[in-house]
Amino acid sequence: MGVDLVVAASVLGVALVIGMATLGATIGQGIAVSRATEVIGKNPNAKKEVMSGLFLGLLMIVALMLFALAIAVILLWMNPFV
Amino acid sequence: MGVDLVVAASVLGVALVIGMATLGATIGQGIAVSRATEVIGKNPNAKKEVMSGLFLGLLMIVALMLFALAIAVILLWMNPFV
Amino acid sequence: MGVDLVVAASVLGVALVIGMATLGATIGQGIAVSRATEVIGKNPNAKKEVMSGLFLGLLMIVALMLFALAIAVILLWMNPFV
Amino acid sequence: MGVDLVVAASVLGVALVIGMATLGATIGQGIAVSRATEVIGKNPNAKKEVMSGLFLGLLMIVALMLFALAIAVILLWMNPFV
Amino acid sequence: MGVDLVVAASVLGVALVIGMATLGATIGQGIAVSRATEVIGKNPNAKKEVMSGLFLGLLMIVALMLFALAIAVILLWMNPFV
Repeated sequence: MGVDLVVAASVLGVALVIGMATLGATIGQGIAVSRATEVIGKNPNAKKEVMSGLFLGLLMIVALMLFALAIAVILLWMNPFV
Repeated sequence: MGVDLVVAASVLGVALVIGMATLGATIGQGIAVSRATEVIGKNPNAKKEVMSGLFLGLLMIVALMLFALAIAVILLWMNPFV
Repeated sequence: MGVDLVVAASVLGVALVIGMATLGATIGQGIAVSRATEVIGKNPNAKKEVMSGLFLGLLMIVALMLFALAIAVILLWMNPFV
Repeated sequence: MGVDLVVAASVLGVALVIGMATLGATIGQGIAVSRATEVIGKNPNAKKEVMSGLFLGLLMIVALMLFALAIAVILLWMNPFV
Repeated sequence: MGVDLVVAASVLGVALVIGMATLGATIGQGIAVSRATEVIGKNPNAKKEVMSGLFLGLLMIVALMLFALAIAVILLWMNPFV
């Protein structure tokens, strides 16, 4: 049963790390997008500047998810304990 | 019991990763939509610009859920440990 | 006991994925609706535009729940491990 | 013990899915109602429009709980594994 | 089974620490980006200053994640108990 317990924990861990990361990233992007739409509505002329700033920010958030993805990949295919 | 424990953890993991991702994505979209409706109410002329910016943002959020979906598919049909 | 453990995890997983998705979707819709009612109160003339934008957003949120429903259906009736 | 484990997980799952759904729906409706009462207080003339928009939104939230109820009914009376 | 239990807990711990860290960092970045886009919309001439301040802040948030990464690396490859 020994190794199986470690594998089970790894599988559950992959799900938790990606689940939590997606949870945060989607809420964070929602907050960023909400403010951007507000500003576009108030000042439609600034749409291009706002959208470019917004996408830079959204990409930063996606970049953070790479940490979580790296852990998921390590646990699934490069697990040092299995 | 060995492999079954891993499979049980995988199934539970699939549920957790999609559950958390949907939890975040729906709250995030709610926040984005709430601000967009506010701005449409204040400045109905800007509705087209606001809606196009909003849908770009909502699509970014849906795109993030693909990370979670990828993990779910891997755990269900390409599980490296089963 | 082997397969039963997997089935038990699947059943629990179905409940968790739909529970979390509903948790997020209802809070998200509540946030969106709250802001829409505010704007209708301030500017009743814009009610039609606001309601059409709001329903598009609410439908996007319901659409996200289809991810969770798909997982629930897969775990209940198309479980690859049972 | 086999089937009993599945039944125990189903019972726990029913409780979790309805519990989480109610948790979200009650918070979501609270947010929506709070903003609506605020706006009625500021602008009592708009009460009729605000209340009609609010009730549409609250019904959308209740509709989402039907997903959770469906899962609860399936797990209790149409459980494919018992 | 002794050591396996410790390893299983370590694996789960890695997932939890990175998952929670990403959860916080992404929401935090979303809040920062939202306010930055707002200010760019109000005063597009200040875009360069705002973006440079924003990126410093976002890098600080990423820097904080190094604490969580350090713990993950220690648990995976330098675990003192395994």
